[in-house]
Formats: sequence, structure tokens, C-alpha cells
Amino acid sequence: MDKAPSERTRVKRYNHLAKYDAETIHGILDAMPMCSVGYVFEGKPVVTPTMQWRDGNMIYWHGSSASRMLRAVATHQVCVCVSIVDALVLARSAYNYNLNHRSVMVFGEARQITDDQEKRHQLENFVNKVIPGQWDRLRPVHEKELKATTLMSLEISEASAKLRTGHTEDDEEDYAFPVWCGLVPVSFNIAAPIADPRNLPGLEMPEEVLAFKLG
Amino acid sequence: MDKAPSERTRVKRYNHLAKYDAETIHGILDAMPMCSVGYVFEGKPVVTPTMQWRDGNMIYWHGSSASRMLRAVATHQVCVCVSIVDALVLARSAYNYNLNHRSVMVFGEARQITDDQEKRHQLENFVNKVIPGQWDRLRPVHEKELKATTLMSLEISEASAKLRTGHTEDDEEDYAFPVWCGLVPVSFNIAAPIADPRNLPGLEMPEEVLAFKLG
Repeated sequence: MDKAPSERTRVKRYNHLAKYDAETIHGILDAMPMCSVGYVFEGKPVVTPTMQWRDGNMIYWHGSSASRMLRAVATHQVCVCVSIVDALVLARSAYNYNLNHRSVMVFGEARQITDDQEKRHQLENFVNKVIPGQWDRLRPVHEKELKATTLMSLEISEASAKLRTGHTEDDEEDYAFPVWCGLVPVSFNIAAPIADPRNLPGLEMPEEVLAFKLG
Repeated sequence: MDKAPSERTRVKRYNHLAKYDAETIHGILDAMPMCSVGYVFEGKPVVTPTMQWRDGNMIYWHGSSASRMLRAVATHQVCVCVSIVDALVLARSAYNYNLNHRSVMVFGEARQITDDQEKRHQLENFVNKVIPGQWDRLRPVHEKELKATTLMSLEISEASAKLRTGHTEDDEEDYAFPVWCGLVPVSFNIAAPIADPRNLPGLEMPEEVLAFKLG
């Protein structure tokens, strides 16, 4: 376990599960594009699910320029959270029931990216990180789309990961109690792609589409 | 689309995807025990991943009585968010890339459950909603465990769901652009349970363990 970069990132509960190294944090962020962006709106907490992607030590998310969420987070504190379920962990007591999971929390001030060239570059990243090379196949981005897109960024400097792996951890005296325990492993199943019925005749699926994975 | 129960639950962006009926909201909450609890801590947003379960029109989550999160949310505003990815949606433009997903946001004031009988009842629900009938097989809960467990509840009154399904929705003029589009379906794969190496000899797995599913 490395040292937490700040007090609010220091994992307080089950802190033996905490990791603060970039490799672990980046790996979890890269494995799950769906994230939860937490922010304060009119004094109250709001958590919005959206897609994130990472480029170096920054994470990005985007949406409509008219979005209430995106307007609220610009130059404001946010907490971006990603979590992946890996297994159900049955225990001998209700108290020790758990999920094996990997999660990341990133804290900081969100910054809006307004430079058109940087926006274009990050939209390219967004597309290519999901399907490698896909950007060059797409209809090029219109100027009005760039204007209608608000792009937010957050530096991954105050971040922590939590990873729970392995078998049940019961109280030592409970191992004599006759209840079947174990793990029920969970993973993502990526099914065969389904072509859009409106695809032009003769178009072939790029093989990189098969590279898409989660978790 | 029903009417939103309050202004903050009214889905503003892509509001044709919004649902406000209990059946839809309960279905999504029941399909995914991992949630994100958003709250304000020292003026800043924090999003904590944890397990939730539903009983009627309430959701519950729990943790250590020493938890910073649980202390911060008691009688405070929270936003609990659940989201499930169903497919990657490739589009002809970066602008229309999407994820098919189901998500729920529940807003309100979290209430701590302090009554021991109610705590016990909800821990039973927590266990049995994951594996039916499992509570009666477990080592009974100790008094000290009840004390060490903080149980939070939130009424599902201000809530909204967002469901994106179906194929790509591109701008009409883009359908002539020669790029292969389609859906890459995502679901949860539940693998065969793995017995705890410390199980007592001769114990058999309850068949209800095979009922566990996500999504």
C-alpha cells in the first residue's frame, strides 16, 4: 500500500484494501467507461452516470453544452467514481458478506476544455479507446458539434483505489459453523456484435470491434 | 413517460429516455446491488461505492459504525445512483456514440435505522435478497455486530430512471456515410461458484446460490 495523496483520499475502512499507485488506478479506470460523477448542485449532492475515458493522468467526460450537470461542475469540486463487481462473497455471518470489487474515487476540481483542437483530440481519444482506430472511419466532426459538446477534465492526482479479492474472511471462531461458503465470480460477457439494420450494403465490420471489452 | 416527482429528478437531457414509474425504478435497483452514494462532506462532493438493497419503497445500505461516509449522510441529503451497461452503441459520428444502459438516481434525506429489531430484519433482507433463504443458514447475528453496523435508509420518492435501448440514432444525413455501425451487447456472466477452501467437510452448496444474478 502506497501513501494516500491527501486526507480525503485516504481509505478509512478496510484500509488494507487500499491502493494509491497510478498503475492500479489507471487499470480500473480503463476497464470501465461507465462512471458516476458526484457534484454539489444548489447545496445538495447529485450523482450522474456518464462515460469517462483516460488520457495520461487526466480523465475526461462530455455531454451536451446545455447539460445541468456539466454547467454545475465546471471549476467546481467533483468526485468521479468507477466500480466493477468481481464476485459475490458468501460468508458464515451476515456481517462478513461482501462483494469482491475494484473501485476508484478521484477527487478534484473539474476543468472545462474549451479549446477546439484539444476537444477534437479528446473526442478522438474517446472513440479510439473504445474501438481502436475507429475515429478515422467516422464521419468527421462538425464545428457545430464541437460547440454543442462540453468537455470536462479532472486530473488524477487525488485518487484512491479499493480492491477486494479472494475468499471469505470470517471471524476465526465462525469457521466451525456449518454453512457452505464460497465465491460466485462475476464478469462481463461481450456478445457478438449486432449490425445496425441501416448499415449501407456491403460494409464489413472492422475486426477491432471485437476488441471491445469491459472489466 | 410519467411525470417527474420533483424538479431535481426531472431528466433534462435526452428526456425521452426517462421513466419515473416504480416498476422500472425498482427493477433496476433490484438488478444491481452495487451503488454509488453521493453526499456532501465538508462542502465537497464524495461518491462512495457500496451495496444497496430494496425493501418496498425504501433502499438500504450499511457499513461500519465508524464509517466517515455513514456518519456524514445521516439526516443529510444524498443521491444514490445505480447503473448497468447493456451495450456499446457504435455510431457514424463521434457525437452519437453511446452506451445502452439502465440507470436510477434516488434523491432524498438518508435516515439512520437505530432500532435493533429493524436492523436485524433489514440484515435478513440484505442476505436473502442475494441468496434466497440464506439468512436461516448463517451463524446468528451477535448483539455487538448489530451495534457495530450502521444501517441507512432512503425513501424512493424522488427518483428517476434513464433507459437507453436499441440501435444507433444517427443524424439522418449521416446514414449515407459508409461506416459500419452496430451494437456490442454486454451482460453479466455468473460463473460456477468456487467453494471456500475452509468449508467444513461434507457441506453441500445450497442450490439457491445458483439463483444469484446481476443485471
